[in-house]
Amino acid sequence: MNLAEKDQRGNSIFDLVDKMLNGSVRALGKLITLVEDECPGSLEALKKVYYNTKDAYVVGLTGAPGTGKSTLVDRIAVEIRRQGFKVGIIAIDPSSPFTGGAFLGDRVRMMNTSNDNDIYIRSMGTRGSLGGLSEATASTVKILDAFGKDFILIETAGTGQAEVDVIKETDTTVVVCVPGLGDEIQTMKAGVMEIGDIFVVNKADLRDADRLVGDIETMLNMGYGSKEWIPPIIKTIATDGSGVVALGEEIFNHRGYLIESGLLKSKKVKRIRQEIMEIAKNKIINKISNSSNEANQVSDELLNEIMLREKDPYTAAEEIVNNFSEIFQKSYV
Amino acid sequence: MNLAEKDQRGNSIFDLVDKMLNGSVRALGKLITLVEDECPGSLEALKKVYYNTKDAYVVGLTGAPGTGKSTLVDRIAVEIRRQGFKVGIIAIDPSSPFTGGAFLGDRVRMMNTSNDNDIYIRSMGTRGSLGGLSEATASTVKILDAFGKDFILIETAGTGQAEVDVIKETDTTVVVCVPGLGDEIQTMKAGVMEIGDIFVVNKADLRDADRLVGDIETMLNMGYGSKEWIPPIIKTIATDGSGVVALGEEIFNHRGYLIESGLLKSKKVKRIRQEIMEIAKNKIINKISNSSNEANQVSDELLNEIMLREKDPYTAAEEIVNNFSEIFQKSYV
Repeated sequence: MNLAEKDQRGNSIFDLVDKMLNGSVRALGKLITLVEDECPGSLEALKKVYYNTKDAYVVGLTGAPGTGKSTLVDRIAVEIRRQGFKVGIIAIDPSSPFTGGAFLGDRVRMMNTSNDNDIYIRSMGTRGSLGGLSEATASTVKILDAFGKDFILIETAGTGQAEVDVIKETDTTVVVCVPGLGDEIQTMKAGVMEIGDIFVVNKADLRDADRLVGDIETMLNMGYGSKEWIPPIIKTIATDGSGVVALGEEIFNHRGYLIESGLLKSKKVKRIRQEIMEIAKNKIINKISNSSNEANQVSDELLNEIMLREKDPYTAAEEIVNNFSEIFQKSYV
Repeated sequence: MNLAEKDQRGNSIFDLVDKMLNGSVRALGKLITLVEDECPGSLEALKKVYYNTKDAYVVGLTGAPGTGKSTLVDRIAVEIRRQGFKVGIIAIDPSSPFTGGAFLGDRVRMMNTSNDNDIYIRSMGTRGSLGGLSEATASTVKILDAFGKDFILIETAGTGQAEVDVIKETDTTVVVCVPGLGDEIQTMKAGVMEIGDIFVVNKADLRDADRLVGDIETMLNMGYGSKEWIPPIIKTIATDGSGVVALGEEIFNHRGYLIESGLLKSKKVKRIRQEIMEIAKNKIINKISNSSNEANQVSDELLNEIMLREKDPYTAAEEIVNNFSEIFQKSYV
C-alpha cells in the first residue's frame, strides 16, 4: 500500500495517520504494522507522525527470561496510569525471530492492563536486521507518542545485542533481577550495571533476595553506574504488586533528575542524532543489498578465482568498496 | 597489534598465522581472538588464512535452550571424529552479549570431547552488530579450516535473528527439538522447517516424543522443506548417546546428496558471494559510523530544528544519503 493505494476499506496510509491522530486504536495498530513492514509510504507517514509527537517519556525494562518482567511492566503501567498519564507498552519478543513477526501479534494479556483503554500494548518481533529492530522500535515509539501516550514502556529480554541497543536508547532503564538465577550477577558485572538507572530485585519473597540486593549495592559502589545519580535498588513482588508504588516513584525521581540536570534534553538530542545516522545507514545498506541482488559486481569469474584460491574474498570486498569509499570520503569529510 | 607490532613474546599476527598453520593450538586460539576483536592486521592475516583453507564441511545445529544441544554436539563431534575426520566446534553463546565476549572464553567441557586433541571447541559471544556475528563466525570457520579441521560444527540457540542467519550459511542444518516445549511446533511452522536438513527429537525417552516426530512429519509433508531431499527425523538421547550413530549417518548422507547434486558447490559459491557483499557492507558501515563520530553532518542547528519539530529526522537522513546515493548508483549500476 503506498500513498496513492487504498485498502479494501478505502484507506491510504495517510488516512490511517489521520485516524490514528484522531484517536482510533484500530488505525494505530494497523499503522504500526505497516511501518514495521516498511510498506511503501511509511516514511512519508512517519514524517507526518513526527510533527505530532510531544516527547513522550521512554522507560526500558530489561532482564533475563523468568524474571517476571511482563507482570512487572503491567503493574508499572497501571501505577503510571494512576498518576494520570497515558501509557503505551512495547514488548519485544525474543522468541519470535523465527516467526517473522510477533508471536501472538498484539500480545493478549489477562492482566491488570487489559481493560484499560489508556494503556496500549504492542508486541514486536525481533525480525529483520539489527538496525531493523531499533528503527522499528523508534518508529513505534513515535507513533505511540503522536497518539497521545505520555509514557512508553519498552520491555525486552535483553538476550541479544539488538535488544540491549534498544534499551540503551531509553530515558530510564530498569534492570530486573531475581534471586537464584546463578550467573545473573556475573552477567551484570560485565555490562548491565552501566545501563541500569534503577535496579529491581523481583520475586523478593524468595530467599537470597537480600543477598542479591547486597551484591548489586557492592557492585554499584565499585564504581559502575553514574556518579550523580545513584541507582536505587527496589524489591518487588510483581505477582501481588508489592514494591511497585516505590518503583513508580523512583521512575518519576529519575525523570525529575534528568529534567533538572538538563540530561533529558541532551539524551533526546543524542538519540535523534543516532537515529538520523541509523536511518541513513539503513538506507545505504538497502541500496547496497538491492544492487547486489540485481547486478553482478561479484562476477562468476571472480567467484571461480576465489574458489580456486587464486584470490581471496577479503581482497574482492576491498575492490568493491574502493570506488565507493573514495567518493564517500569526498562527500563526508 | 598490527602487522608490524609484536606482543610480549615477540609474535606478530602473521607469526601467529604461521604457528597456527604449523599446528599450534595456542596460536589458533589467540588468532581467533585477535580476528574477533578486529585487531589491526586481522584482515591481512585472514587473507593468508584463506589460501590455506580446504573447504571444511560446516554443520549447523540449532534449537531452543534446554533441548540438550551442547551435549548432542559433543556426541556428534566424537562420532565424526570416529570416522577419521578432524572436528572443530563453534558454540555461539546467546547469554553473552552483555559480557562483550564469550562468557567462559573457550568453553570448558567435562564431556566426551575434552580429552581429544583433534576436537577443538571455541565459544563466541553474540557481541557487536549482526554483521559482526556472521562475519566473526565466517572468519573462525576459515581459521579452523586452515588449521586442518575437516568438519566444523556450529551450535547456536537460534533465539535471535543473528543466530538464524549464521545457521542459514551452513552446509547441513540440524534442527533439535524436544517433546513438551510447548510452542516448539508453532515456532517451527513459521520458519525453521525451511532451514532444517535433518530434524532431531532429543530426549526421546520423554513421553510425547513420538507425537513430536509425527507432528514434524506432518509439517514436512505439508510442503515445507526441499522436495529432492526429504529431511529425516532422528530420535536421540544425547545424555546416553542413543541415536547419535544414526544422526551421524544422516549428516554424511546429506553431505553425499549435496556433493552428488552439485548443490555443495553452488552453496559455497553463494556463501562466498554473500560474504564478500557482507564484508563490503560492513566496511562501508564502519566508514559511515566513524565519520559520523568525527564530523558534524548532523549539525547542532539541524538537531535544534528537529527538536522544535521544524524538520523531521527522516528528511534529515534523506538529505545525508542524497549525495552519497547518487554517486553510489553511478558506480554500481
